[in-house]
Amino acid sequence: MATPRSGLITLLTDFGTADTYVGTMKGVILSIAPQVRLVDLTHEVPPQAVGVAAFLLGSSCRYFPPGTVHVAVVDPGVGSERRVLAVESLGHLFLAPDNGLLTPVLDDAIEIRTVTAKEYFLPKVAAVFHGRDLFAPVAAHVAIGVPLAALGPVAVAPERLERSRRSSATAGILGQVIHVDRFGNLITDVRAEELPVSHPVQVSIEGQVVGPVRRTYSDAADGEPLALISSCGCLEIAVRNGSAARHFAAGRGASVEVC
Amino acid sequence: MATPRSGLITLLTDFGTADTYVGTMKGVILSIAPQVRLVDLTHEVPPQAVGVAAFLLGSSCRYFPPGTVHVAVVDPGVGSERRVLAVESLGHLFLAPDNGLLTPVLDDAIEIRTVTAKEYFLPKVAAVFHGRDLFAPVAAHVAIGVPLAALGPVAVAPERLERSRRSSATAGILGQVIHVDRFGNLITDVRAEELPVSHPVQVSIEGQVVGPVRRTYSDAADGEPLALISSCGCLEIAVRNGSAARHFAAGRGASVEVC
Amino acid sequence: MATPRSGLITLLTDFGTADTYVGTMKGVILSIAPQVRLVDLTHEVPPQAVGVAAFLLGSSCRYFPPGTVHVAVVDPGVGSERRVLAVESLGHLFLAPDNGLLTPVLDDAIEIRTVTAKEYFLPKVAAVFHGRDLFAPVAAHVAIGVPLAALGPVAVAPERLERSRRSSATAGILGQVIHVDRFGNLITDVRAEELPVSHPVQVSIEGQVVGPVRRTYSDAADGEPLALISSCGCLEIAVRNGSAARHFAAGRGASVEVC
Repeated sequence: MATPRSGLITLLTDFGTADTYVGTMKGVILSIAPQVRLVDLTHEVPPQAVGVAAFLLGSSCRYFPPGTVHVAVVDPGVGSERRVLAVESLGHLFLAPDNGLLTPVLDDAIEIRTVTAKEYFLPKVAAVFHGRDLFAPVAAHVAIGVPLAALGPVAVAPERLERSRRSSATAGILGQVIHVDRFGNLITDVRAEELPVSHPVQVSIEGQVVGPVRRTYSDAADGEPLALISSCGCLEIAVRNGSAARHFAAGRGASVEVC
Repeated sequence: MATPRSGLITLLTDFGTADTYVGTMKGVILSIAPQVRLVDLTHEVPPQAVGVAAFLLGSSCRYFPPGTVHVAVVDPGVGSERRVLAVESLGHLFLAPDNGLLTPVLDDAIEIRTVTAKEYFLPKVAAVFHGRDLFAPVAAHVAIGVPLAALGPVAVAPERLERSRRSSATAGILGQVIHVDRFGNLITDVRAEELPVSHPVQVSIEGQVVGPVRRTYSDAADGEPLALISSCGCLEIAVRNGSAARHFAAGRGASVEVC
Repeated sequence: MATPRSGLITLLTDFGTADTYVGTMKGVILSIAPQVRLVDLTHEVPPQAVGVAAFLLGSSCRYFPPGTVHVAVVDPGVGSERRVLAVESLGHLFLAPDNGLLTPVLDDAIEIRTVTAKEYFLPKVAAVFHGRDLFAPVAAHVAIGVPLAALGPVAVAPERLERSRRSSATAGILGQVIHVDRFGNLITDVRAEELPVSHPVQVSIEGQVVGPVRRTYSDAADGEPLALISSCGCLEIAVRNGSAARHFAAGRGASVEVC
């Protein structure tokens, strides 16, 4: 029997909001599942930035009710032979291209299917817009109870994003910036639980010293940089009432060291 | 008897999302019709770009359930004597200023009314914000079943946008770019069904060769330009994993030739 | 007995829409109150611009049904000792940091509480994201009927934003630009009811003449500047089919004189 559904579908894409791509997906979903409710996670993932999408989905999905269907479409390979995955993990359901986007939920997955059942697609699938013609109608069907097993065969060896970890000359932790948020906060792939508990640490970014890890923004003076644990549980580099991205001239991929 | 309503209202404007103009319209709608559900098509139509709005509405509306009310407010003439139209077409209902925005649905219209019935407006109509004081409350009433005939008299000679078509020296098809999407894809007003079926074509933009029409983005190499049929059924010029707008230094209005 | 609830929650933040901060708040709300409906007022308040947030909230909230819960999080002091307020005013309910954001509704407030009741927060409150861990769950509980009195003690002396009013050398009205909207319209803190009714006025901005107050945009020629009463009831400086912000090289804080 299928896991109970919450009646919610979340959408995460790199489609932006200046076009009607996302609105059209919602029209398709509501045509099939009129009672479903829709929540936008974001549509401003940088174009084709699968790693950012994976981070944002992984840090957000657990705040929704169990049985929510999360549709994530950042899909540089649309129209090619890349597979589409349907995954159940952490009590939630996920639909995404098989390009590593679902990496954060694969370890806990209890079911991983390749979506092939055309009866759940729109009758005509444009090679350039699977969001509308495949992901949206499949999500609607999953949200009203179609079990993942009906969507296609078990998927073997789904793609995973590798975490880049160089070794540190100083025996510290080396990571990198994986996301720059609206405020210019730099969110890294160093998890809070990786930090040593026994002694205070020093954080630096691209060779520039940030300082120790503090509790919250207001522990720094106005305009002063600081390191802290972000709301997603990762090490974050910020500037109080300012932009760390500007302050350190750093963006996605910048190297971070904790020692 | 009025066409059955889907309980959905879509909104398409040039109001942006940095102000509360759209949120306020939603408040007005939900005050009158608390059960109605709202979908944003987009609010980032370039300011007063009626042609872009017409394109986006025309290519999206059919993906919603029949009986949906589509409200489109791109309205350079707000407060002037321009009329407001209520149209039933293709099984859907439309509200928009009479400035050509509804051109894509006028040919199939079975009813076109001028909205004059003040009892469906807010009590006080600001000359500068008909979205809130006129379109929103009228849409709410239409969505709960008020028939278009109650809104005002039959509208004669609604405005239409003319499609610009110059003649081609080479007997090819001449069109132009009508929309640039988030990815820098250039969407043209050349419809797929205008293309010759008997022989391969060559597409060019502003005198620069793009090549033949291909099936999907991944039929080109990374960074390579290509022509293809967009998800709306129009000829599109793209660059795989890049921006055609940047590549060709071309935007809205750029001339496109197929021969 | 608590005021009846409308089942609506509005959200106004400076979180932007490129991250999943807002989506995550919605997940938290819908986990607690699955039937509640959500409306975004805007999430693009300039970072930490409490005055802009106050203006936008004050001019929008009255267009929603009575009993709506308005959550406004522009919160430079997150994680510090600043209080969180729950206010009932004008038939609506408000949650916001105690930093002046609620100034427009404080005069009419019938109840002002400091939110301290941790049983309505998420179990773990991150010092950096009260939107998700405090505001969202408290809003959900208020929307399903928890009375404000259950949230904490009566709040004494809530913060208020002071309106800056310099005296005018010419006995006119002096104000300033409080918001620049998407179209480049300059919205001022001069209320329509402050304007003299007995004689026509002249409006100027930063020493540049705008002219008299007119009724609507189309009372000016294309590209011509004009003053008019905005949809929120404030004096607005605009350029027909253009940007007053660009025309006058003026932004938030620019001085405006009416004489």
